[in-house]
Amino acid sequence: MTALLESYASGRWFCADDDGQPVRDAVTGEEVARVSAAGLDLGAMVAHGRTVGVAALAPLTFHERAGLLKAVAKHLTDHKDELYELSFRTGATRRDSAVDIDGGIGTVFSIASKGTRELPNDTVHLDGGLERLGREGTFVGQHVWTSRPGVAVQVNAFNFPVWGFLEKLAPAFLAGSPTIVKPAAQTAYLTELVVRRIIESGLLPEGSLQLLCGSPAGLLDELTVQDRVAFTGSAHTAGLLRNHTQVLHGGVELTVEADSLNCSILGPDVSADDPELDLFVKAVVAEMTVKAGQKCTAIRRVLVPRALAGTVTDAIAARLATITVGDPRSTDVRMGALVSLEQRDEVRKAIQSLRASAEIVFGDPDHVDLVDADAERGAFLSPVLLRAADGAVEPHDVEPFGPVSTVVAYDGVDDAIALAARGKGSLVGSLVTHDPDVARRVVLGAAPWHGRILVLDRDDAREAAAAGGHGSPLPVLAHGGPGRAGGGEELGGIRGVLHHLQRTAIQASPDMLTAITGRWTTGAQRTEDPDGTHPFRKSLATLRVGDTIASASRRVTRADIDHFAEFTGDTFYAHTDPEAAAANPLFGGIVAHGYLVVSLAAGLFVDPDPGPVLANFGVDHLRFLTPVKADDTIAVTLTVKQITPRTSADYGEVRWDAVVTNADDEPVATYDVLTLVAKQWPA
Amino acid sequence: MTALLESYASGRWFCADDDGQPVRDAVTGEEVARVSAAGLDLGAMVAHGRTVGVAALAPLTFHERAGLLKAVAKHLTDHKDELYELSFRTGATRRDSAVDIDGGIGTVFSIASKGTRELPNDTVHLDGGLERLGREGTFVGQHVWTSRPGVAVQVNAFNFPVWGFLEKLAPAFLAGSPTIVKPAAQTAYLTELVVRRIIESGLLPEGSLQLLCGSPAGLLDELTVQDRVAFTGSAHTAGLLRNHTQVLHGGVELTVEADSLNCSILGPDVSADDPELDLFVKAVVAEMTVKAGQKCTAIRRVLVPRALAGTVTDAIAARLATITVGDPRSTDVRMGALVSLEQRDEVRKAIQSLRASAEIVFGDPDHVDLVDADAERGAFLSPVLLRAADGAVEPHDVEPFGPVSTVVAYDGVDDAIALAARGKGSLVGSLVTHDPDVARRVVLGAAPWHGRILVLDRDDAREAAAAGGHGSPLPVLAHGGPGRAGGGEELGGIRGVLHHLQRTAIQASPDMLTAITGRWTTGAQRTEDPDGTHPFRKSLATLRVGDTIASASRRVTRADIDHFAEFTGDTFYAHTDPEAAAANPLFGGIVAHGYLVVSLAAGLFVDPDPGPVLANFGVDHLRFLTPVKADDTIAVTLTVKQITPRTSADYGEVRWDAVVTNADDEPVATYDVLTLVAKQWPA
Repeated sequence: MTALLESYASGRWFCADDDGQPVRDAVTGEEVARVSAAGLDLGAMVAHGRTVGVAALAPLTFHERAGLLKAVAKHLTDHKDELYELSFRTGATRRDSAVDIDGGIGTVFSIASKGTRELPNDTVHLDGGLERLGREGTFVGQHVWTSRPGVAVQVNAFNFPVWGFLEKLAPAFLAGSPTIVKPAAQTAYLTELVVRRIIESGLLPEGSLQLLCGSPAGLLDELTVQDRVAFTGSAHTAGLLRNHTQVLHGGVELTVEADSLNCSILGPDVSADDPELDLFVKAVVAEMTVKAGQKCTAIRRVLVPRALAGTVTDAIAARLATITVGDPRSTDVRMGALVSLEQRDEVRKAIQSLRASAEIVFGDPDHVDLVDADAERGAFLSPVLLRAADGAVEPHDVEPFGPVSTVVAYDGVDDAIALAARGKGSLVGSLVTHDPDVARRVVLGAAPWHGRILVLDRDDAREAAAAGGHGSPLPVLAHGGPGRAGGGEELGGIRGVLHHLQRTAIQASPDMLTAITGRWTTGAQRTEDPDGTHPFRKSLATLRVGDTIASASRRVTRADIDHFAEFTGDTFYAHTDPEAAAANPLFGGIVAHGYLVVSLAAGLFVDPDPGPVLANFGVDHLRFLTPVKADDTIAVTLTVKQITPRTSADYGEVRWDAVVTNADDEPVATYDVLTLVAKQWPA
Repeated sequence: MTALLESYASGRWFCADDDGQPVRDAVTGEEVARVSAAGLDLGAMVAHGRTVGVAALAPLTFHERAGLLKAVAKHLTDHKDELYELSFRTGATRRDSAVDIDGGIGTVFSIASKGTRELPNDTVHLDGGLERLGREGTFVGQHVWTSRPGVAVQVNAFNFPVWGFLEKLAPAFLAGSPTIVKPAAQTAYLTELVVRRIIESGLLPEGSLQLLCGSPAGLLDELTVQDRVAFTGSAHTAGLLRNHTQVLHGGVELTVEADSLNCSILGPDVSADDPELDLFVKAVVAEMTVKAGQKCTAIRRVLVPRALAGTVTDAIAARLATITVGDPRSTDVRMGALVSLEQRDEVRKAIQSLRASAEIVFGDPDHVDLVDADAERGAFLSPVLLRAADGAVEPHDVEPFGPVSTVVAYDGVDDAIALAARGKGSLVGSLVTHDPDVARRVVLGAAPWHGRILVLDRDDAREAAAAGGHGSPLPVLAHGGPGRAGGGEELGGIRGVLHHLQRTAIQASPDMLTAITGRWTTGAQRTEDPDGTHPFRKSLATLRVGDTIASASRRVTRADIDHFAEFTGDTFYAHTDPEAAAANPLFGGIVAHGYLVVSLAAGLFVDPDPGPVLANFGVDHLRFLTPVKADDTIAVTLTVKQITPRTSADYGEVRWDAVVTNADDEPVATYDVLTLVAKQWPA
């Protein structure tokens, strides 16, 4: 009898009270480990996450959390070899494991990087702009995102024991939510190894990651309003979870990513000679055979123009004939085993259902030639291609979670869109076309039914393949789909982080809002240094939100405008031709260039000597609100709006609010000036 | 017997087959109307929305839909008097009705305005920026929002028959979703009148609005993946809806806004002499009595520092004593009736539950002195204030949906936050404080439990009151809350629109993405006019996305830099002091001003003569990527990225992609140039 997999719960490794259930090698049928959670105190786990985990994560800024994630990803990179080795036992080839292991680690790197670039170095993230709620500006509104003092539970599918865990861990951790991961029993040993390496590293604060190997029965009973469950798996189990009393009545948020009947559409523009035909065939075969088709994003429905249906079917079948099946450790093998014999039975049953309205055109569900493997002990299955009869129902309803797809013929673009929609909501669809009009029509028609759509043609094929093609969720793109696909959404850069945060609309005075958000709010107090010290003379050590320089004023003469036009070459008539400028409906006469106004404003606010301000690296949201005419006087007020120290540099970003006004105190131009400022000065 | 309210279904007014159930005047007990949906074909209604409604809405741009909403709001403004008159029968005073009627119409105006300003004049809305998915830029990702080909069903509460309908209609309509509104029976006659006036106006396309007066039994059975139900009402009914098979298994999206146990917190910094104490007392009394407390946002829990609990309780009671109750038509009356005698029974029961751990300190649930009204026939109830015993449970669990609140004493800021959280998720909380530290601690601590938090002090009190205070959702701010409050979210400007749209990640080549989104994508083909016509010479009639001007180049000399420094006064050392500039870690020598670079770039791309380009009104996302040193050569490429014709002007906005490059073809600066361009030229 093999050893029991341990859970990591409440700060220690836990071994169950009983013998557990065996988990078998997908290739040899040997027992790999045993799984049980008997005796595990799930309530204590949840409480540990809510107390120890939340207390550790809440004070960390988004950037600090991102830094820890990056360190974890690096640490796991150092342990990839043993993960690859163990992964063979799930039936995965080395190429399959790359999707799971490198894909998972790469996702952590990507989310960490997005967090650093797109979230503030703070614990509160602002959503959208300031809303003025009264005429005088004493009452304003701002949406903010804050962390929830609850746990993020992930209940995962068996097919991606590494990626499935890490792609959920990274956004939750970045959001400040402690994770409890519940892997599927069939491949829990691989998730357990990853968790063990992370825990051993000591990189993540205690309480921020716990592992539950075994039955999660009773776990949802422990969850309440601030907790969140992310489930990946079958639509059937998703329905059971939705029906749990804590989800129905207890305020537990449940998000679901379920298997779906994804389609790939060959555009009606593609002829047999076009390179797109070959791209299409290759993509279908890849999706059928990578991970032995055990991907919730795999192509289950192959939608082909009726005239080409035979040609395409033959081409797919021919290519499938080259796929070798067997021991995934063998370099001669292209497709490994399904995860278990039970799973193979399920797929065979699904094929049987499909045969009610589709005929098998390639493959035998009951026989496959194997390389270096024993058909009696391993969960091997031949790739199976079916061709649907006209009006077939089953291909749109039955999901064979294995190397199985069905070709369905369509008549015209509208029919293709209608057939795609018969999946009742999918994670991903793809379209292979080189016609922009077909792309626009099909993509916009199918978009409401899909979480992701890939458009493939000769132009993007190479890089699309490198990125994983149809079946690969990418960390920067949202993953999930409506309806049958579960209605959830994960990843998508910081979108996946925001799903873990609570959005709250704050209404307050500008001063109070500044205090709450830590960012200067229009209308709040501005601080001019009592000694007259220019804020450009302050490093991040002393610079504060609200610090302000109110400049002297400068008259803008007609000579300035003429000169600027001549010097820059910007002789646009509104700056140079009095008669034509007078006819302009917006100006009614010569006006200064907008670029002249901001250039002169910089001359007014800048402090020239070497100091902590290193560079102006950009400008955001510049709007010219009132024309500046000859002999108007302008002045500028520059106020520190947001300070973002960079974790990995000796400087940080300072965002300044700039308002240029005229002599009547009307705003002439408003914008944000972006600078890099040293953390210490002198350094 | 009064007349049956009609439904508006499948393009005609429908009268039920039976006598229906009576709805009674809240004040007099007289029958106002009868309600029944017997014989109504709900399946046909849903199909009508999906076919006729979707077909009418889908081709309209967001701006066109916004224009229709604005016209509806204007039309309803012309019919306000009859709405106010009918609203008295619900028990509402004129002031109560303003929240419902003017609030509802104002919400439509606001959403329409946001739609015009923040959504494109198109049917597809982009989400976030472009994601590069390969090194060479041939494969990119973009998230888009598209309309769903389904219906938006709203199931509303009785308390805001006008606002509740319009605040859901406007975002759904803007999103392109046809609405089916199901008002609560008690006040359905008022919603029916509003719908009737809208249908009569002919402003909205047929199929985009249907009305169901009577039982919605069976309606959810008709809904599928692309349909959405927005429910406002009790947590109990919300639980039943969540349990419906089409929600559990059919992919129907359900969003819930449920009553919640909102709190208001008096800050520990406030003393008896501070103006904040009076603001707090006034806010509590207003929330208890407006709409006779029948607001899901009303203050149910009054959290007060223990030392001030007695003082505050007395002050609230004293103010409540001035509230006159009776016929809402009477100008002497401050508080009208509850909506029905049944509702009054419910509130009395809730008060009885509260008395298990709280004592009544003001009001008698069984008696109230009335002005111009009959206590036997109208659903009148005295305001009732309770004071909770230490450790009381019921005030955090029992919601009296009427003029009832409970004072709870707290000890310190952490206790106040913990008590607020005991509501298990609320729509709104408020904090009255003048201390920024208290504001930051309490707001950030309570934010995860709230959809909205109001911070009130002497600075924002006047404008906050004008905006409706604690209890008023605003169209520009999100409305909804976690947990007990239902977990849904509405309004919040275009946030509420996005909830109706599907987000899809599109992966494609830049050219295909340009074709799909109608916006030029970095990396896509640029079109230089074969005749060499400058794009500034093209009006919106001929200008196309992708039109490009690639400028000549210009050498930037040290003399240019010196001169610009002197002319503008921007003598920052990096532009003027070779030695200091050399020491700068980012530049390593004299660099041109960023403002000089963009000024010269404008000189390179501008076409000076009068033409269709009317003005440059702004610049977005300007980033300086590579320093420009003396004698570097720069050139600029300007490409039409997005064209947004304005519906109500003879010009539109053109967003140009600008890339300034140096002689090595490195990007020096990238930004968007925003211009106004005439629709026709010559005009």
